[in-house]
Amino acid sequence: MNYNQVFDEAIDRLHSEGRYRVFIDILRNKGAFPNARCFAGHNGPKPVTVWCSNDYLAMGQHPKVITAMEDALHDVGAGSGGTRNIGGNTHFHIQLERELADLHGKDGALLFTSGYVSNDATLSTLAKLLPGCVIFSDELNHASMIAGIRNSGCEKRVFRHNDLDHLEELLAAEDADVPKLIAFESVYSMDGDIAPIHALCDLADKFNALTYVDEVHAVGMYGKRGGGISERDDAADRIDIIEGTLGKAFGVMGGYIAADMRVIDCIRSYAPGFIFTTSLSPVLVAGVLASVRHLKSSSEERDAQQTAAALLKQTMRDAGLPVMNSVTHIVPLMVGDPVRAKKISDILLAEYGVYVQPINFPTVPRGSERLRFTPGPAHTPAMMTDLVAALVEIWGRLEMQLRKAA
Amino acid sequence: MNYNQVFDEAIDRLHSEGRYRVFIDILRNKGAFPNARCFAGHNGPKPVTVWCSNDYLAMGQHPKVITAMEDALHDVGAGSGGTRNIGGNTHFHIQLERELADLHGKDGALLFTSGYVSNDATLSTLAKLLPGCVIFSDELNHASMIAGIRNSGCEKRVFRHNDLDHLEELLAAEDADVPKLIAFESVYSMDGDIAPIHALCDLADKFNALTYVDEVHAVGMYGKRGGGISERDDAADRIDIIEGTLGKAFGVMGGYIAADMRVIDCIRSYAPGFIFTTSLSPVLVAGVLASVRHLKSSSEERDAQQTAAALLKQTMRDAGLPVMNSVTHIVPLMVGDPVRAKKISDILLAEYGVYVQPINFPTVPRGSERLRFTPGPAHTPAMMTDLVAALVEIWGRLEMQLRKAA
Repeated sequence: MNYNQVFDEAIDRLHSEGRYRVFIDILRNKGAFPNARCFAGHNGPKPVTVWCSNDYLAMGQHPKVITAMEDALHDVGAGSGGTRNIGGNTHFHIQLERELADLHGKDGALLFTSGYVSNDATLSTLAKLLPGCVIFSDELNHASMIAGIRNSGCEKRVFRHNDLDHLEELLAAEDADVPKLIAFESVYSMDGDIAPIHALCDLADKFNALTYVDEVHAVGMYGKRGGGISERDDAADRIDIIEGTLGKAFGVMGGYIAADMRVIDCIRSYAPGFIFTTSLSPVLVAGVLASVRHLKSSSEERDAQQTAAALLKQTMRDAGLPVMNSVTHIVPLMVGDPVRAKKISDILLAEYGVYVQPINFPTVPRGSERLRFTPGPAHTPAMMTDLVAALVEIWGRLEMQLRKAA
Repeated sequence: MNYNQVFDEAIDRLHSEGRYRVFIDILRNKGAFPNARCFAGHNGPKPVTVWCSNDYLAMGQHPKVITAMEDALHDVGAGSGGTRNIGGNTHFHIQLERELADLHGKDGALLFTSGYVSNDATLSTLAKLLPGCVIFSDELNHASMIAGIRNSGCEKRVFRHNDLDHLEELLAAEDADVPKLIAFESVYSMDGDIAPIHALCDLADKFNALTYVDEVHAVGMYGKRGGGISERDDAADRIDIIEGTLGKAFGVMGGYIAADMRVIDCIRSYAPGFIFTTSLSPVLVAGVLASVRHLKSSSEERDAQQTAAALLKQTMRDAGLPVMNSVTHIVPLMVGDPVRAKKISDILLAEYGVYVQPINFPTVPRGSERLRFTPGPAHTPAMMTDLVAALVEIWGRLEMQLRKAA
């Protein structure tokens, strides 16, 4: 048994498929988002414009967030020092859970160290608590939901993306007495489309299934108070468990679920991924608290993001670039090949100071590799004009076809 | 199918076993660790002394750590805004990985959002990359290692705690060509004992097995530069993968592994728990960087912790309290019953302003419930005298036996 050989071969496979990942080395400049310093290459850090951040509303540099974090740092120190049960349950954690429960109109909420862990820990624990549970999972669900479902060891039925007929067919095939859970996302982050929440809940009602929705690409950005698509569609009270992140629109780090108190209490008490881990740093929690409170009362950032996304999509469409059919703030540009996607990204960075990451398998299916832009309140129309001109030039250089303008 | 009933029953089981967990609501006071404010009950926050924090060396309030975090907050903002691959790879992350690799004398290191995720993601991915892999796991391994091993889907052999004969017997029973991984901790956090690293590595050599050690309760605290027990015992180069945390002795939050670059590259490229999650906030990473660098060159905190632990153990022993046989900084006091352990903890908090969490199943086996004290550089001899006097009074009140002083 030669371990090194096995590891080398695993890495070689990635190189040969053109999907070996090189992480770009940057620091964003607070006060000047989306500008950043890139440390790649020589001659010191070079300025770049970041087009692929999930700090969607630039809350990561909001003065209220920064001040709250600074105050917490000086008041209570850096880390929490323990799990939630052993010394790591700070007053900030309790306040934030109340705030998030209120955001979604639920009894309770529970914080996790990340959105990934929220999904993994909650789904795996839920299904274990419900003997014989079958989980119905949208085929485009995030890797963390897939991990949670797999780690639960329960039966899984995958329904075609947003396909209600297929889901109904699968639900109808199960015994009525079997516990059922329908798991889906509200905004699918790589395509930018949205789940039909009410129709999914109708099916859940009909077949007595629990509903679980991942709103990580929606919380803070949709709904009057930033409660996500479930708030926008007035459907939050029909969802049993709403999962969200603190690391995207809220600009900091961490994840959570909001649900009925008995569900929260079960996950809190039974999920190893919640119990056996140091709790979120109180500094982060204090920052998120400020961010959630701000976005509950301010729609300015949400509106500016929607305006920016609409303008970028239109500018790309007008130029004949193959922008995908997104109905959200996400602007994906189809390339369809990992080597070419990386090439475009490399040219943008080296020659135009534009940073947008190519998205490859396993994040998206093979053959649908793309560039994914996330314009926000800090991206100006002038930046968009420059970006689209650069893309058109590169499209020509690589002899890729532009569409006729609509 | 009545979901609410299932959830209610799950909670009732915890109540009936006396192990329903109530999280204490506190804020520690920077500049005055181990003092904190407790928000339970009425009449505003009450002062308490924290005796169960895993911020072992009080680095969570170290001026260098606080300053580094404040600087990063103002320089780059709150969150990283993305996964390591998509916008969330900051220069701080790269610097910290270099620093941690150097700490353990390895080629590379990889950051995770927590120690739990490091273990889960690394062990599950490693075993999947090695077809037919068998993992040999110490029976007292942490929940996160157990999760990683289970989630890998590979074969597992559990050896009796630190029992080399049993491990050898299990290793010998497997085919020589089968990939093997021996997974253990250096310091077992609930008992305070230590693994015989060299002897375990001898067995690994003999049977051509990889070695994986969880050093979360040792990094920062053992070894001349804080490299853990593997550094203290001069065994780091015999361990294939060293796993550590940034949330205990380093005082902040997060986890990592250090290993040969090809192993790092494989985990980086194949582990969903690493790939699909927002990276650690650069504010945290900057704080850890300061903490790791400080503890590499300063032994003052380590020495003070060892002195405090030795004094507390001796004071307890002299008073006849059933302090367990720990050879480390961890001071566990055996109670052996969950209801009684909670009772002692409740009295300490309500009447003495002392916070120590009772440790119950599943963190420790049923019947071995205990109180676990973690004295550090900030706990004074006077605090210890007060604590032990309180414990002796409560032991008497609850009609529990004291040992004869040795």
